[in-house]
Amino acid sequence: MRSAAELDAADPLASLRPRFVGADSSLIYFDGNSLGRPLEVTGPRLREFVAQEWGGRLIRGWDERWFELPERIGDALGSTVLGAAAGQTVVGDSTTVLLYKLIRAAVALRPGRTEIVVDRDNFPTDRFVADGVARECGLTLRWIEVDPAGGVTAEQLAQVVGPRTAVVLVSQVAYRSSWLADTAALTRIAHDAGALIVLDVCHSAGAVPVHLDDWDVDLAVGCTYKYLNGGPGAPAFAYVAARLLDEITQPIQGWMGATDPFLMGPTYTPAPGIRRMLSGTPPILGMLPLEDMLGLLAETDIGAVRQKSVLLTAHAVGLADDLLAPLGVTLGSPRDPERRGGHVTLNHPAMREVTAALWRRDVIPDYRDPGGLRLGLSPLSTSFAEVECGLEMVRETLLAVTA
Amino acid sequence: MRSAAELDAADPLASLRPRFVGADSSLIYFDGNSLGRPLEVTGPRLREFVAQEWGGRLIRGWDERWFELPERIGDALGSTVLGAAAGQTVVGDSTTVLLYKLIRAAVALRPGRTEIVVDRDNFPTDRFVADGVARECGLTLRWIEVDPAGGVTAEQLAQVVGPRTAVVLVSQVAYRSSWLADTAALTRIAHDAGALIVLDVCHSAGAVPVHLDDWDVDLAVGCTYKYLNGGPGAPAFAYVAARLLDEITQPIQGWMGATDPFLMGPTYTPAPGIRRMLSGTPPILGMLPLEDMLGLLAETDIGAVRQKSVLLTAHAVGLADDLLAPLGVTLGSPRDPERRGGHVTLNHPAMREVTAALWRRDVIPDYRDPGGLRLGLSPLSTSFAEVECGLEMVRETLLAVTA
Repeated sequence: MRSAAELDAADPLASLRPRFVGADSSLIYFDGNSLGRPLEVTGPRLREFVAQEWGGRLIRGWDERWFELPERIGDALGSTVLGAAAGQTVVGDSTTVLLYKLIRAAVALRPGRTEIVVDRDNFPTDRFVADGVARECGLTLRWIEVDPAGGVTAEQLAQVVGPRTAVVLVSQVAYRSSWLADTAALTRIAHDAGALIVLDVCHSAGAVPVHLDDWDVDLAVGCTYKYLNGGPGAPAFAYVAARLLDEITQPIQGWMGATDPFLMGPTYTPAPGIRRMLSGTPPILGMLPLEDMLGLLAETDIGAVRQKSVLLTAHAVGLADDLLAPLGVTLGSPRDPERRGGHVTLNHPAMREVTAALWRRDVIPDYRDPGGLRLGLSPLSTSFAEVECGLEMVRETLLAVTA
Repeated sequence: MRSAAELDAADPLASLRPRFVGADSSLIYFDGNSLGRPLEVTGPRLREFVAQEWGGRLIRGWDERWFELPERIGDALGSTVLGAAAGQTVVGDSTTVLLYKLIRAAVALRPGRTEIVVDRDNFPTDRFVADGVARECGLTLRWIEVDPAGGVTAEQLAQVVGPRTAVVLVSQVAYRSSWLADTAALTRIAHDAGALIVLDVCHSAGAVPVHLDDWDVDLAVGCTYKYLNGGPGAPAFAYVAARLLDEITQPIQGWMGATDPFLMGPTYTPAPGIRRMLSGTPPILGMLPLEDMLGLLAETDIGAVRQKSVLLTAHAVGLADDLLAPLGVTLGSPRDPERRGGHVTLNHPAMREVTAALWRRDVIPDYRDPGGLRLGLSPLSTSFAEVECGLEMVRETLLAVTA
């Protein structure tokens, strides 16, 4: 196993790390998959925005730049992170609200079909929204039961989809286990059954390559406050494949999704293109940190980010094997890097207590029931030394807690 | 008519004006009812937030402050601006998304009733959302036709509500005419018919007193980027009367509106209280400018703000009578200050061209079809001298355009 020092010395992305606030502080941050660090440029840029763009241009800012921002940042996300050609991605609302719109839209595109397929271990908001849409539209949920340390496989999906399936809702990376789904295969299986797929890329976008166009995904949603460093509650994004844009409709008919919002006409006519997925006034301030991060990502590419991410998680798995397995810790994530996203979950019954104790020592992993310590290793802002030091402290803490 | 100089000299709120970015610049800003100016404290505060609270506390910020922010700022809005006791107001999403949730919620609370009542001149997003909900729930829209220079009266509403009415959707202040509805009377009429009222206070909150509790309003929504200076696309707020909180449900079932979001349990159970109106992760960054503005409002009170607002609009009406009526301009807003909100609309067929010409001269009113020049006089950041100077430039420009 290569040492952290060797890995850091060989890291081609190491020079980007100081661009993040606090990346060189003594705090060890293992929760980049819940909330990424801000970029150093973002604070001054927000201050400048308030003084110049909002304060100086005032309402004229809408004509000059803001009106197009949801699509412009959407396109940048598409090309930099999502593998999506222009005109299919838009930023705005929360992941939950966009999931609601997309699932409703998908159900409307498959009239007569009666089931929504979702895995039992999908993120709560995905399950809750799917459940709500199913109930209001008179559909039933069809659950895929998954291995807690794994996720949805092609075989599992093939067993449950069929002529009744309207929509399949899956996450590319599972929030607990870090299972990286074979999204191309899942999409083919959904399509073979005549169903649409809604892909949640919240836990992958920015750390794991996404190829929405190549995979033939229908609809996708993702958040920007994890590996895209958009800040707490930053707006989410929605993707609609170009082939569906003419026919898709969504339930929250607002002025910003209508043709010519400033005409303020008598009836709602959906805007052409991806803009019809918007509803209300888009959150401009909240998009700016994301815009900064997309600028940084444009200096490298997502392939290089993924490469570092795989090395980081492999390093964590190796250290866990050496330091923690002897204490009864088991790996709650795939060992195969091809099936693993950007985080690593380590299981032990004492992990809730361990997490609390680590937080008091400025080591910040996340905890997910049952017994999962989650290391979210944001590729651009995390060093191998940080991983090593942090895992040594997990060992120390676990020893203390179970003593 | 008192001079602008006299009025400014006597203005008890004049000392607050320099707190806004650019308030003393040469630009004349008459669009505070579309996008309010930022406060001087907001830019530095956002920079500080990124460095310290987001960058320093990272994920811990959710436990320490952010999780409660939608309710905490909601309560502050309630006490400062909305006349709402604590526990009934929450911040998050856009106005459009919240309107959707509230109208759907209201329809669910009145099963068997088949009509949504809305006025023909309500803001487009209100009409569009109501139309969408009506269609998806199998209801019909019942329109109130209103005078373009006025708005919904008690008599008009009484004529259309009845045993079929599920919901009445009205704005406190009409976005075009500035008509200030007698909201208490409208609420009584809706209730007498057994219907619920959804009140839109987008165009009043922060400039006109709102007394949601005293008026017995059921549900309300409003935006924060107009007279509440929250910035472009700042999050909106929703109010649900305490008596409805136990039974209300909303369609977008997300983890942040569920009991114990971090339990991540198998099924959605709505959170107790107003929190159940949330869906996704709330937009923290976008709430901070609003928090600053609520701090400023706490230094005065909404009654004093309204007093200045009435003087500002009266001054504009007086100047329009003197300077513009001779050129064929008519008042598109109520002359009675008791029936007038915070803006004044002046009608003339050339106003679209006049607005464009004024913008080129750094005089920024808004334009609304047909032929309406809209002066949105944000009470705390607008001086009487600004009104006077601006209206003289409207006269000059109108003369030039029609020459």
